[in-house]
Amino acid sequence: MRMGVIGSGMVGQRLAADLARLGHEVVVGTRDPGKLEGFVAEHPGVRAATNAGAAAFGEMILLATRWEGTREALDLAGEENLNGKTLVDITNPLDFSGGRPALALGWNTSAGEQVQGWIPGARVVKALNIVTADAMLNPRTFVGGEPDMFIAGNDAAAKGEVTRLLEGVGWGVVDLGDITMSRYIEPLALIWITHAANSGWTKRDHAFKLLNR
Amino acid sequence: MRMGVIGSGMVGQRLAADLARLGHEVVVGTRDPGKLEGFVAEHPGVRAATNAGAAAFGEMILLATRWEGTREALDLAGEENLNGKTLVDITNPLDFSGGRPALALGWNTSAGEQVQGWIPGARVVKALNIVTADAMLNPRTFVGGEPDMFIAGNDAAAKGEVTRLLEGVGWGVVDLGDITMSRYIEPLALIWITHAANSGWTKRDHAFKLLNR
Repeated sequence: MRMGVIGSGMVGQRLAADLARLGHEVVVGTRDPGKLEGFVAEHPGVRAATNAGAAAFGEMILLATRWEGTREALDLAGEENLNGKTLVDITNPLDFSGGRPALALGWNTSAGEQVQGWIPGARVVKALNIVTADAMLNPRTFVGGEPDMFIAGNDAAAKGEVTRLLEGVGWGVVDLGDITMSRYIEPLALIWITHAANSGWTKRDHAFKLLNR
Repeated sequence: MRMGVIGSGMVGQRLAADLARLGHEVVVGTRDPGKLEGFVAEHPGVRAATNAGAAAFGEMILLATRWEGTREALDLAGEENLNGKTLVDITNPLDFSGGRPALALGWNTSAGEQVQGWIPGARVVKALNIVTADAMLNPRTFVGGEPDMFIAGNDAAAKGEVTRLLEGVGWGVVDLGDITMSRYIEPLALIWITHAANSGWTKRDHAFKLLNR
C-alpha cells in the first residue's frame, strides 16, 4: 500500500521505517526533504518529500506531528491531497507549560475532532496515540498477550482499513465509535506519559490491554 | 477494618457485601436505612445507617454515589465525620442527556478534584471507578493476568491504605500522582461504558491491564 507519513520527527521516522519493513511504499513529508537524506538512504522503501508530496502519494496518511504544528502541517499537505483518504491521527494535544504533561484540550473536544474539522473530506481515524513510537507497529513485543488499540472515527470503511493494518501486526482493535470518542482515547496517552514520567522515564514500554472474564 | 460505604445502590451494596466477606466491619449509609433491612439480613457483617452514621463509623470511607447526588450525600455524611479519613472516590461524573454516556465534566477538572474540594479535610483517593461493581473487589476473576487499577490522590498514606486493600484482593496498583490525575482516570470509565454500550451491554466484564515488554 502507498503510505504518506506527515511528520518527520522520531514518531514519523519510526513509522516510516516500520511500514517499509512491512512491505509498504512510504513517503515521509517534511519541510526540508534534504534533511532526511541519511534516514532515507538507510531505509529502502522510504522516500522524503514535502508534506504535499507525501499526502498526494499516500493512499493512507499517517499524521505524526507535534500538536502545535499539526494544523500548519495539514495546511501544507493540502486538503486536495487528503480528501477522501484514510487519515490516521496519531497526535496528542500535549501541553508541557505547567511543568508536567497535560492535555491542551479535551472533555468536549479532542485532537481527533479538531483534525477532522480542519480536513472535513478526510476519513480521520484516531489510533496509535497511546504507545511509544517503536511499539506502534510492533505490539507483539509486549509480554502477556495481545495489547489492545482503541480507535475512533466517523467512517466505517476507513476504520476497517486501519483495523486490518493494526490486526496484521498484532494489535487487538477496539472500535469505540465516532471521532468524538477521541475525547476518551487521548487521556490514555496522558496515563502512558504520566506513568513514564513518574518512573523518571525508565518505564517507556507499556501498552493497554482489556482483560475479560 | 471499619468501613463506611456512602451510597446504597447497586455499587454500594456490592462493595459492602464484598468488604464484609473480606472480614471488614461495614456500615452502609443511606437516606432510609429501613429500606436495606433485607440486604442487611442477608449479609452478616453489614449494617445500615444514615450517611452521617456510616461516615462516623468508618475508618475508611468508600464513596459510591451517582454523580448528581454526590455533593448532597457528602453534606449529609458531614464534613466532621470525614475529616482526616481516607475517602475512596468511586464516582464517575456521567451525563446521559445526549442519549449516550458522556463525561459531565473533565479535562481541567474531575470528579475526584470536586470531591476533594468539597471535603478539603478528607484524604481523597480516586480508585475503583473503571470496572463494574462486582469486579471491584474480585479482580482475580479476570483472565490473562492481574488487571491494573489506576489511583490518584494528594495523600501518600491514604494511597498506601487503598493500595494495600486493592493489592490484597489481586489488583496491580498504578499510582498516577495527585488528585488532578483523576482527569485521566475518569475517561477510562467512559471507555469501559462505551465498549459495554457498543456491545448492547453484553460485554460488562472488562478491566484494564498495563502490559510491559
